Amino acid sequence: MIPSALLTDLYQLTMMQGYFASGLHTQTAVFDMFFRKLPYQGGYAVWAGLEELLETLETLRFTEDELAYLDTLGLFRPDFLAALRDWRFSGQINAFAEGRVVFAHEPLLTLTAPLWEAQLIETMLLNTLNFQTLVATKAARCVLAAAASPHGGEVIEFGTRRAQGPDGALSAARAAFVGGATGSSNVQAGQRFGLPLTGTHAHAWVESFPDELSAFRAYARVYPDSTTLLLDTVDTLNSGLPNALTVARELRRSGHELRGVRLDSGDLAYLSRTVRAALDGAGFPDVKIVASNDLSEGVIAAIIAEGGRVDVYGVGTQLVTAGGTGGGALGGVYKLAQLDGRPRMKLTGDPVKSSLPGVKRVWRAQAEDKTFGWDVLTLGEAPQAGQLVTDPTNPLRSARLPATLTWEDARQTVMAGGGRTQPAGTLPEIQARAHCELARLPAETRRLLNPHVYRVSLGVDVSGLRDSVSAGLRAELK
Amino acid sequence: MIPSALLTDLYQLTMMQGYFASGLHTQTAVFDMFFRKLPYQGGYAVWAGLEELLETLETLRFTEDELAYLDTLGLFRPDFLAALRDWRFSGQINAFAEGRVVFAHEPLLTLTAPLWEAQLIETMLLNTLNFQTLVATKAARCVLAAAASPHGGEVIEFGTRRAQGPDGALSAARAAFVGGATGSSNVQAGQRFGLPLTGTHAHAWVESFPDELSAFRAYARVYPDSTTLLLDTVDTLNSGLPNALTVARELRRSGHELRGVRLDSGDLAYLSRTVRAALDGAGFPDVKIVASNDLSEGVIAAIIAEGGRVDVYGVGTQLVTAGGTGGGALGGVYKLAQLDGRPRMKLTGDPVKSSLPGVKRVWRAQAEDKTFGWDVLTLGEAPQAGQLVTDPTNPLRSARLPATLTWEDARQTVMAGGGRTQPAGTLPEIQARAHCELARLPAETRRLLNPHVYRVSLGVDVSGLRDSVSAGLRAELK
Repeated sequence: MIPSALLTDLYQLTMMQGYFASGLHTQTAVFDMFFRKLPYQGGYAVWAGLEELLETLETLRFTEDELAYLDTLGLFRPDFLAALRDWRFSGQINAFAEGRVVFAHEPLLTLTAPLWEAQLIETMLLNTLNFQTLVATKAARCVLAAAASPHGGEVIEFGTRRAQGPDGALSAARAAFVGGATGSSNVQAGQRFGLPLTGTHAHAWVESFPDELSAFRAYARVYPDSTTLLLDTVDTLNSGLPNALTVARELRRSGHELRGVRLDSGDLAYLSRTVRAALDGAGFPDVKIVASNDLSEGVIAAIIAEGGRVDVYGVGTQLVTAGGTGGGALGGVYKLAQLDGRPRMKLTGDPVKSSLPGVKRVWRAQAEDKTFGWDVLTLGEAPQAGQLVTDPTNPLRSARLPATLTWEDARQTVMAGGGRTQPAGTLPEIQARAHCELARLPAETRRLLNPHVYRVSLGVDVSGLRDSVSAGLRAELK
Repeated sequence: MIPSALLTDLYQLTMMQGYFASGLHTQTAVFDMFFRKLPYQGGYAVWAGLEELLETLETLRFTEDELAYLDTLGLFRPDFLAALRDWRFSGQINAFAEGRVVFAHEPLLTLTAPLWEAQLIETMLLNTLNFQTLVATKAARCVLAAAASPHGGEVIEFGTRRAQGPDGALSAARAAFVGGATGSSNVQAGQRFGLPLTGTHAHAWVESFPDELSAFRAYARVYPDSTTLLLDTVDTLNSGLPNALTVARELRRSGHELRGVRLDSGDLAYLSRTVRAALDGAGFPDVKIVASNDLSEGVIAAIIAEGGRVDVYGVGTQLVTAGGTGGGALGGVYKLAQLDGRPRMKLTGDPVKSSLPGVKRVWRAQAEDKTFGWDVLTLGEAPQAGQLVTDPTNPLRSARLPATLTWEDARQTVMAGGGRTQPAGTLPEIQARAHCELARLPAETRRLLNPHVYRVSLGVDVSGLRDSVSAGLRAELK
């Protein structure tokens, strides 16, 4: 569903009217979207939500109901409301393709539009990109943790009941898929995004029958080719496992195969090893073991470290709410970089909250082994070997670019004149892009704990412009 | 907007079809919704989301589009899909009124319905109640922290850009209001729920003018009676404050008054004290000081402890994403308690994940000073002085009820036959109820850190039933 034009903060509308009243609303503004800190104290983020944003921007309008509501607030003049009736987004967007890996302090998206258009959409843009990037990154962390097992392992998204609102669940299911989850339990996400759906049964199913074995048999009768049995309603090893083996044998006798079993409590490393051995010993090596119960990338890694034999990790709460240190919210911001051709920046008392003036380009280096090596921001020109670049948060830290890198202009024009410049990417394409991008990260950057910090630097033109604009602002203070 | 019937986990639909195929779907099921741990390591929760849930249940239907989508999955039979076409929720709900304070281990809502109806709505019910209760509780914590200042202080919700999806923002704005926030910046929440809207201006406004003073003057010209100026774009005390005072004087000369100033970075305790003194000294004691910048209940308490003079706390990320220890998600669950007249429970390997069988009533005691004193679950009868009650998680801990308590049946029937039994509560009514309830909590239970644990106990009939049902389940294991 397309968010409403009212999915915005009140101050965006009052500022829009202010620009309109001051005749400034059509000045060309350039805004950068970026974040200052990678989520989960990790080494990368997976950029997600862009295609949804573009879809929204192409169709965003004020409806008559919405205009009538705004009129009731007593803040807006008739000429402004009339102008909103004709409002359309007409801007241009340069951005990383959805699914790419991205880092702190680089503009992920640069929007060029008449000032009042750029202002209105800030809230909705940040809402979409912040949350989806956060969840896609969490999913990638879980998927990479699961893939580290010698036996492999996949991740599915299970979290709707704990998600932050109905759309929190939908957006999370979409973003989890971008980050590499192979499916979701959310049926609405299946319908809306074409995501593969997945599911087992609940404890209540078992409790609805006289005993566990009857419950298992009844489920297998209805779904002879797609049954995954939940083992822990009574006792995993003493009741669930032997009853599941009975049903697996009965299914096989009638020409079907049990698909899987699910563990939802207890020591998942120990239980999965034991259940795997029992299934293998009974001639059921293809029955998958699904595990759930407040999983996260850290728990997945711990299960694997202890020899656990889980095939499918059902990750819920921690994935859809982006749990964990530095999770919960991505602090992506949207800052004015240029207005009417003049570079702009915010100074503030807090140096890390300053922004970078000017229209920047993001160059990404590929090393000789095809891994990503360095991201550099310039005002246009490609970086050259031997050039001096500086750290975005510490002007005293600088380095010279080596000659071994090949530079790519990392972003592209994805929207112009308010319309897409290319067909929408499909979710499987975006997921495949994320998969390839993660493979090209230096291994030490992918680490769950204490990863290597990937270098993002400023070219001398960018740091020089920042110095001159901030000097001008300080001069205002006398 | 009404959530779709597909806002559910796939396994709910496969279980529904299983019950349908086994002829069990119309058996009467009783499910309890409860949580096992209070959020934020706090002493209470504010129950929220109920009125939205009831609105959804009254209107929930499968649309033809949704049925056509389900048909494409290859899992569902025509007779089952035909039955879904006529599906309506026909159940009964007993619950705490929205806005009441609630605690761990007590059934907050008990739903009685045909088994397949009860199963379908689990996911949507938990999604709604978990998140709104979480945010209303966070808001209450912030509001109580702000109210502790000798000068008072209110909380407004500012977090849409960091919320978990568009509906995450909407639901959070609603729930924050229930918990005591006086307004929101989210315009869509204003339209949908009638919430009071609030806002200032952004740094980009200041950067869009040649200098800060022109920017302030331009805003005041458009909104002479509702201007709040953001002071920290250049330098809070050396630029923002003197420019704001200039505009405040100019407004007064033309018969208007500056409404407020906003601080968005730096030391908010120090800056608010200094700005308050300057405003008072210049004859503007009524100009409000608004503060923002990753606030939480802990930061609010710290600002007040250091003599800060903030009038309005704009709380964003931490409020809408329920940040902080034990936040992010409320682990509310929905467990089968009785089926077709027979008590049911889940045992599992993990004792704290067991559920309480039987249809229970929740009694809340009022002490002589009108504060709440104790919650006791029974199978029907009101608790009596001298009765022995036990801790829900530790059967070895028991106590006798004192004679000084007056008992109230704490929940009511809010839905019967799928329809509300009383008119929908309005949000201001619900907010007022939460306010009164919080005032009746023992003070030590309201504490932010290490609060006193409010007592929730089981009557002997409830613990006796749990013992006999679990003994029966263990007997199955031979």
